Amino acid sequence: MSKTTTWTAETIAVGSELLLGGRLDTNSLFIAERLAACGIELRYKTTVGDDLSDMVAVLKTALRRARVVILTGGLGPTIDDLTREAVAKATGHRLSRRKAALEGMIARLAEWGRTPTTTQFRQAMIPARAEILSNPVGTAPGFSLVWKGTFLTALPGVPREMEPMVRDGVLPQLRAWMRTQKRLSASPMIRRVLHTSGVPESVVDQALVGLVPKGCTIQLGIYASPMEVMVSLTGPAGAQGGVTIEQLLKEAKARLGDIVYGEEDDTMESVVGRLLNEQKLTLAVAESCTGGLIGHRLTQVPGSSAYVDRVAVTYSNRAKVEMLGVPSGVIQQFGAVSADVAAAMARGIRERSGASVGVSVTGIAGPGGATESKPVGLVYVGLDGGQGEAMTKEFRFHGGDRAVIKQRSSQAALDLLRRWLIKKGC
Amino acid sequence: MSKTTTWTAETIAVGSELLLGGRLDTNSLFIAERLAACGIELRYKTTVGDDLSDMVAVLKTALRRARVVILTGGLGPTIDDLTREAVAKATGHRLSRRKAALEGMIARLAEWGRTPTTTQFRQAMIPARAEILSNPVGTAPGFSLVWKGTFLTALPGVPREMEPMVRDGVLPQLRAWMRTQKRLSASPMIRRVLHTSGVPESVVDQALVGLVPKGCTIQLGIYASPMEVMVSLTGPAGAQGGVTIEQLLKEAKARLGDIVYGEEDDTMESVVGRLLNEQKLTLAVAESCTGGLIGHRLTQVPGSSAYVDRVAVTYSNRAKVEMLGVPSGVIQQFGAVSADVAAAMARGIRERSGASVGVSVTGIAGPGGATESKPVGLVYVGLDGGQGEAMTKEFRFHGGDRAVIKQRSSQAALDLLRRWLIKKGC
Repeated sequence: MSKTTTWTAETIAVGSELLLGGRLDTNSLFIAERLAACGIELRYKTTVGDDLSDMVAVLKTALRRARVVILTGGLGPTIDDLTREAVAKATGHRLSRRKAALEGMIARLAEWGRTPTTTQFRQAMIPARAEILSNPVGTAPGFSLVWKGTFLTALPGVPREMEPMVRDGVLPQLRAWMRTQKRLSASPMIRRVLHTSGVPESVVDQALVGLVPKGCTIQLGIYASPMEVMVSLTGPAGAQGGVTIEQLLKEAKARLGDIVYGEEDDTMESVVGRLLNEQKLTLAVAESCTGGLIGHRLTQVPGSSAYVDRVAVTYSNRAKVEMLGVPSGVIQQFGAVSADVAAAMARGIRERSGASVGVSVTGIAGPGGATESKPVGLVYVGLDGGQGEAMTKEFRFHGGDRAVIKQRSSQAALDLLRRWLIKKGC
Repeated sequence: MSKTTTWTAETIAVGSELLLGGRLDTNSLFIAERLAACGIELRYKTTVGDDLSDMVAVLKTALRRARVVILTGGLGPTIDDLTREAVAKATGHRLSRRKAALEGMIARLAEWGRTPTTTQFRQAMIPARAEILSNPVGTAPGFSLVWKGTFLTALPGVPREMEPMVRDGVLPQLRAWMRTQKRLSASPMIRRVLHTSGVPESVVDQALVGLVPKGCTIQLGIYASPMEVMVSLTGPAGAQGGVTIEQLLKEAKARLGDIVYGEEDDTMESVVGRLLNEQKLTLAVAESCTGGLIGHRLTQVPGSSAYVDRVAVTYSNRAKVEMLGVPSGVIQQFGAVSADVAAAMARGIRERSGASVGVSVTGIAGPGGATESKPVGLVYVGLDGGQGEAMTKEFRFHGGDRAVIKQRSSQAALDLLRRWLIKKGC
């Protein structure tokens, strides 16, 4: 079934609106990590609309190629919600109204002072032989069954309902079933991640050539996005071909050096926040082309109010003068997008706020605003730590639209701050 | 092949990191809408890791169940990038280095002052008989071929590369091929979208009960996300069961009233920007709990420098006093999260900036910072237009984390501004 010692899993997300994307999928990582810890590898992810025959076809394919199939969505009360019917049809089990499912639903609604509507009774129709999974948060029960050697479970799509049901219902069932399948010694998969900033994918690729020895089944992944290049090492726990993932991770970090800004779930803003906290420093930011994105990112981190004092988004030149005290002569002489203005912005926000460090960005995000000497993508970042001159750095970002240039500019500014904090902390 | 008059399409996103989710998929909507206009319906979306045999298996399934298959990703230069190999294997075509592909890549790199590395030559290996799709933005060429009656195309996963390649390369090829398939009269699907703000899904649902007459094949979709409830109407062009999509759209707008803030690709920030531009007004924003998100959203819109003057993110109380002139007595008396402080913030930023209108937000995004009387999710938005008292509005957002509360708060503030601008413009 699979060329490694792991079992293959597939998730099926049900819902016509999911075909159109535009929504952040947080279910996959959650499911993939929980399965990996059981030695099961998520290998396929399928999305299908609310169409019975399409769903049955997708289910049949999944039951053929995976040992574990996790369906999410389509368990609601409306006639669009067809997951129960699709599972019944694909496995040849009949649907019937199940007492345990009905009672759970009634109990949940009672907590909210409500009684089931007639349409909600559909939610208690469960395929025969399936075990019911109670939903501690919402009304829709889930269920699990084993069909021709594949473990199949159907869960709500809402993360805060799905997650406890996986933890408290699916995983115990799955582990019990795996034991009956003589898979007691399933080898858990490990995935370790490094985040790098400031260099293109090809540089990371080049640095890691030959990292994984020949014959070793540990997989190296290199993934570029506008803000970073991510490196992952995935494989079974324990030594593979003489090396462990931890050894390779250490080697990768040594090869990559200070372009590695974090590991695992780290983000640039969480790393910078940790460094500021450790050194008991406060931060003020002066943004121009990034428009507030740096502030937004910094304040995504819980507890950031301990070190983020203020952000000034000085979109107009007048705002740069009034909010930051940038001398209007400097703007006239060098232009708003210049190293001199970036330096004056960083110094201005630090001095006015009394924060330990001031960071600034000014640039041309496009599509308008460019001149011959100042193209779209020209960005200056600045940093003033209150000792000597403010430092600045010039960037020329190619081939991105406005949103990408904003992202890359915010990352460059935060990375300058990170490097300064590390130096200072040493 | 399909029970409707439309053709079935499947997208395959390639990349092990995509299996884990956590990244916003904007490709699907773009592809689904372009295909729909050709009478092709996106019915399956598959994600697969960078594993050759998994990719071949997924491709074979797609080639069986869809008439149009669009692969994205896996066209980069590294050995992880296996889309070219997978297509060659699934279709039995050999790979060879193609001159047109190589030249396009060299030309692109030359623009950036670079020459191809040896690994990049892999990007010019294209399956035999495939037509090459030039990439106007990046180095990876795409390609298209027809295999056993199915149109298959492989494109980069990066939206800003993929989108122009679909528009200028894939769609003309696809239309030409459809004509040879006697599909000249393919019935285009139409999808119209309304965006609403400020009410839960159940309210929208209730308002639209019975909108689509029985027997009519036009599909109504209602999709909730943290910032909005989206309504879509999808179906073939022309009257269905006596009504057209345009008629239903008009009726839906009448039923929903002023909670509809936009249509199609509109975002709240683009709508607000249009209104500000039309009325030649400028805007200044004072943010607290949103941390810069409102500024970031406003400045995502090209040309926003015409009306965004400045944003002050006053995270600390001292910043509220210093940057906005909020009286410290008001903060002491009512707390930083209060209607009074929201009003003072909006007034302060407007007066100090000289902008036409000032908007403010203060609230508790959590997880910390809550008190018994001021729970996580309590948010005040304010607006000062320079005439009379600043207006404020209280919100209590339930059941979301920090990121969701920031999103909903930013949407509430922009919606208050939208409603004020519409009233003012009348």
